[in-house]
Amino acid sequence: MESRIVASLDLTDKEKLLALSETIGKQVFAIKINWPTILSAGKSIIGELSSYSKVICDFKLADIPNTIKLIAKQIADQDPYAIICHPFVGSDSLKELVSTGIRTIGVVAMSNDGASEHLNKHWKELLSDVKGAGAYGIIAAGNNYTLLKEISSQKEHLKVFSPGVGAQGGSAAESIKNGSDYIIVGRAIYDSADPVSEIKKINSEIQ
Amino acid sequence: MESRIVASLDLTDKEKLLALSETIGKQVFAIKINWPTILSAGKSIIGELSSYSKVICDFKLADIPNTIKLIAKQIADQDPYAIICHPFVGSDSLKELVSTGIRTIGVVAMSNDGASEHLNKHWKELLSDVKGAGAYGIIAAGNNYTLLKEISSQKEHLKVFSPGVGAQGGSAAESIKNGSDYIIVGRAIYDSADPVSEIKKINSEIQ
Repeated sequence: MESRIVASLDLTDKEKLLALSETIGKQVFAIKINWPTILSAGKSIIGELSSYSKVICDFKLADIPNTIKLIAKQIADQDPYAIICHPFVGSDSLKELVSTGIRTIGVVAMSNDGASEHLNKHWKELLSDVKGAGAYGIIAAGNNYTLLKEISSQKEHLKVFSPGVGAQGGSAAESIKNGSDYIIVGRAIYDSADPVSEIKKINSEIQ
Repeated sequence: MESRIVASLDLTDKEKLLALSETIGKQVFAIKINWPTILSAGKSIIGELSSYSKVICDFKLADIPNTIKLIAKQIADQDPYAIICHPFVGSDSLKELVSTGIRTIGVVAMSNDGASEHLNKHWKELLSDVKGAGAYGIIAAGNNYTLLKEISSQKEHLKVFSPGVGAQGGSAAESIKNGSDYIIVGRAIYDSADPVSEIKKINSEIQ
C-alpha cells in the first residue's frame, strides 16, 4: 500500500538532506521542501531529490501572476511534482500557476495559531477558488479536526494534504480519519534518531 | 533629495542585474528582488546587490513562524534592508519575522486584479496587525488611488510602499499624492532602453 506520508524536510545541510532522502524516499508519498532548503542548497536540489521521491515545492506562493510565472519558469526543468500556493492573493495568480502545467496545491487552512485570525475563516471561498482553477489539491491543517472534517467533506476531486501533524500537535491517524489524503510530517521525521522506524510507525498507525 | 523609487528588478540574468544595479543603485531608494532572481542567482546576490543599494527581499513570506525563522536565518548574513511578508497568515508569523531584527514590510493591499477578491477587503485588519507587530512598513497598491488614500490616512509611523506603478497602470505622481512614501517600479525600469533617464523622469514627475 502506498504511503500517505509527505516528509517535510526543512534541512539546510545538503548532504544530510540527500542522505536522509535516499534512506526514506521510497517509504513516503513525497518529499516536501521549502525556501530554507532552496536558499541553502540552490534550486538544483529539487532535481537531485527527484531521483529519490516525488518533490513538492512548498513555496507558499502569494504574488501577482507575472511573478508566479517567472518563479514557475525558473524551476520547470527541475521536475517538481507539485507547488504549493496561496489562493488568498487572488484567482488570477492561482490560475496562472495551474496554467504552467505543474500540479497546484492551494492553501485553505494552516496549522499555526495565527491562522485562525484571518486565513482559516475564509476557507470556503478559498476552496471554491481552488476548485474553479482546476488545481490538484489543497492544504488543510491536520491539528484542527473539526475544521479538517468540514473542509474534506467538500473537497470533491482535490487531494487533501495536512500539515500540523507531529511537532505541531496533530495525530496522523486522526487526520486521516477526518479526511486527509496525505499527512505532512516534518520534525518528527528529520529530528528522529531513526527516521525509518518513525515512518513505519506512522504508516502502521494510519492503516 | 532622496529618491522615492524602489526599483523592482525581477531579472534572472545575474550579469545584467549587477550591471543595471551598479548603474542605477545610487539613484533609487532601494532595489527590490524576488524569488525568480534568488532561484537563478542564489542567495548571495542579496549581498552582492547591497554594495550598490539597499536591498529589499520581496519574498511575500506566508508561512508558519518556524519556517519564517529558518528563512530569515538563511539570509541574515546577506545584509537585506527589509523583507516583505503577508500578515494574512497570522500575527504569530508576522511577529516572528519582526523579532529577527530585519525590517518587516507587511502586505495589506496588492495590485493584481484578483487581490480585490479576498486580500484587499481585509486591509484594515491586516494594517492593524502590522502596527501591532512593530513592523517597518506596508505594501499598498499604487494602482487603486481611493484605496491607497484610505490606507495611507491610517498608516501612522509605517512607510508605505506602492507597487502597480508603470506596467500595471498606476502613475508615480498620483501614488505619491495619495499617500505612498515609496513607489515600486519594475518593468518600466528594467525593460527600458535607458533606465537612468526613466528614473530621472519618474523622480522629477514625483517632485
